[in-house]
Amino acid sequence: MTFAGTWSELAPVGRATDGGYRRFAWTREDHTLREWFAGSAAARGLDLVTDRAGNQWAWWGDPDATPGVVTGSHLDSVPGGGAFDGPLGVVSGFAALDLLRERGVTPARPLGIVNFVDEEGARFGVACAGSRLITGVLDADRARALRDADGVTMADALTAAGRDPAELGPDAQALRRISAFVELHVEQGRALVHTGDAVGVGRMIWPHGRWRVELRGEANHAGTTPLADRRDPMLDLAALIAQVRRAAEDAGALATVGKLRVDPNGVNAIPSQVTAWLDVRASEETAVRAVLASLAAYAPQEESWTPVTVLDADLADVVAGALDDPPRLGTGAGHDAGILAAAGIPTAMLFVRNPSGISHAPAEDADEADCLAGIDALAAVLGRLLT
Amino acid sequence: MTFAGTWSELAPVGRATDGGYRRFAWTREDHTLREWFAGSAAARGLDLVTDRAGNQWAWWGDPDATPGVVTGSHLDSVPGGGAFDGPLGVVSGFAALDLLRERGVTPARPLGIVNFVDEEGARFGVACAGSRLITGVLDADRARALRDADGVTMADALTAAGRDPAELGPDAQALRRISAFVELHVEQGRALVHTGDAVGVGRMIWPHGRWRVELRGEANHAGTTPLADRRDPMLDLAALIAQVRRAAEDAGALATVGKLRVDPNGVNAIPSQVTAWLDVRASEETAVRAVLASLAAYAPQEESWTPVTVLDADLADVVAGALDDPPRLGTGAGHDAGILAAAGIPTAMLFVRNPSGISHAPAEDADEADCLAGIDALAAVLGRLLT
Repeated sequence: MTFAGTWSELAPVGRATDGGYRRFAWTREDHTLREWFAGSAAARGLDLVTDRAGNQWAWWGDPDATPGVVTGSHLDSVPGGGAFDGPLGVVSGFAALDLLRERGVTPARPLGIVNFVDEEGARFGVACAGSRLITGVLDADRARALRDADGVTMADALTAAGRDPAELGPDAQALRRISAFVELHVEQGRALVHTGDAVGVGRMIWPHGRWRVELRGEANHAGTTPLADRRDPMLDLAALIAQVRRAAEDAGALATVGKLRVDPNGVNAIPSQVTAWLDVRASEETAVRAVLASLAAYAPQEESWTPVTVLDADLADVVAGALDDPPRLGTGAGHDAGILAAAGIPTAMLFVRNPSGISHAPAEDADEADCLAGIDALAAVLGRLLT
Repeated sequence: MTFAGTWSELAPVGRATDGGYRRFAWTREDHTLREWFAGSAAARGLDLVTDRAGNQWAWWGDPDATPGVVTGSHLDSVPGGGAFDGPLGVVSGFAALDLLRERGVTPARPLGIVNFVDEEGARFGVACAGSRLITGVLDADRARALRDADGVTMADALTAAGRDPAELGPDAQALRRISAFVELHVEQGRALVHTGDAVGVGRMIWPHGRWRVELRGEANHAGTTPLADRRDPMLDLAALIAQVRRAAEDAGALATVGKLRVDPNGVNAIPSQVTAWLDVRASEETAVRAVLASLAAYAPQEESWTPVTVLDADLADVVAGALDDPPRLGTGAGHDAGILAAAGIPTAMLFVRNPSGISHAPAEDADEADCLAGIDALAAVLGRLLT
């Protein structure tokens, strides 16, 4: 099947009328995507394996005999997300395998395509949950107890999806099968637009984390409580948002308040509590820490933290050699590739040009010609690593 | 049954573990409360009538022969609300009727107890929806199209609750049956604590309204979008919240941002839009208008507006005479009594002391002795009006 044909199979799943995607882990939409992955593996005669976290692996060859080269990404999305972040890497993995077969390549080691579960962390709040679980970075007990916006735990969500939550945990066997990991991803910025290249190579992933701030007040009636008697946490929220931006500017970091919860969230009710989530990233950890230090009065609670990830230099050289010296990019976005790299697996990333530079939104985009160039590049890289 | 006994029947319905109530219109909880109302009417041999909006009326005597005196309130709540706002007036209505019968009063006109539906507007955003519908202040087509937080329309909610949404509309017959309306309510402030009285009489309801502000931005990835390239509506929200408080202080009004919606509300997503709801009230309309004028740049959209309601002076004199000159209070809270008064029905309000002064929150309270004093006062007033 052509790239366009495969792409159109995925297009309707979880798409809202405004074009935004909602593909949260262990939902009906996720189930549909996992079935699609299983079907794509079966159509190519690949062996489908699911690890302890529920990540799906489609193998050409036996990785328990010889560790393999793995490519892939994830199929879940942020709320209101774009079509490319995640799926482009998985679809390109299958397409690159097809190209290698068409060219009659005889691999010296197995090739795997992976669909990492819950990369965005949109449902349970922890990004890269699937790769963090198998590498032991995310504790299984903590994961099982995480709750979504409706109060459903990950354990209950797993059970509802037909999985046994007791299976969650580090999966050494799954990791032993990976001799190298190459993730292809749509660019989340416009560096390739500026250099005029369809494809670039990842150099490093910025240190990044998420924090939660709880602003407590006193619930009361908005129509009867004098201003002077109020403890209105909405006023603290206004100060927090302004301070986050100021601190990010001062430190040269990126800092964002993108998610809020207001309790009870009634028009005529002074809130009892406002909860705000912070996302902070920078090319240097010191800049992230400077932002947090300026927010100390708000006592931010760390929900996740990923140190800087320098991708494998040798593997990046192999990639660059296969692609005739493409641009090398740093990125502020976290990826499963970063989690695997931190676990000691040689890892590389390829980026495909995004004309809008926008990601995590419907305007996220990539020209079909650039996607095909990405697939060609991925096939070239995998060809070198496999033979 | 004693007041305490009746009160304990209602206590568990829709109560969360923190003691806050969630009793939204046309939900399972609301259904339970409506069944309780119907049972209370039946136990007293009253005729249960439901009007075109779904408000429940329990009649002692035939109001189509002679217009009657009505008391009552509502059983729904805000999210995280208290136990007293609404239910105290309904329970006191039944209790006052019991007292009148015990005393052998022979009424010269019918007595009605009412349960107004959807007074808080917590589910569909329009307060006093039941009384606004029967008086024609809320258009039936607009009401049917209102949506709750899950996107369910009022029409669909009515259908799911076994009602025909086509019935919604002005109900002249229901209004003709009311010669006078007396609403008993827990005080939403501490004026009676300061005067040392268990019960007070309403003088006026402040002009008040709700507005919606839509702050639009551009959705993008929080980890990859430079600060200078962002259009982040969260920053506009911070400015709006601060400006609302400043304007309220300057105008001597009450103004509150109590409800927010963030789209898409993801930790690592710069929002595409933040929607904020304003509640503004003051003893004078000019003060409300001054607050709105200072927010003109945000183009607030009016969702509801209720002008000042001066309660019926003659009826207030009757009430004061029955109660030996109690304190007369103004209130910033809207009530169905205000909607009926604006429709030309002579209307009075009684307030029962609230030690915390807090309302719309679990700390809302009234001593049992004060509740019994309120029931005595209500019975005295109804006795004068009925004979």
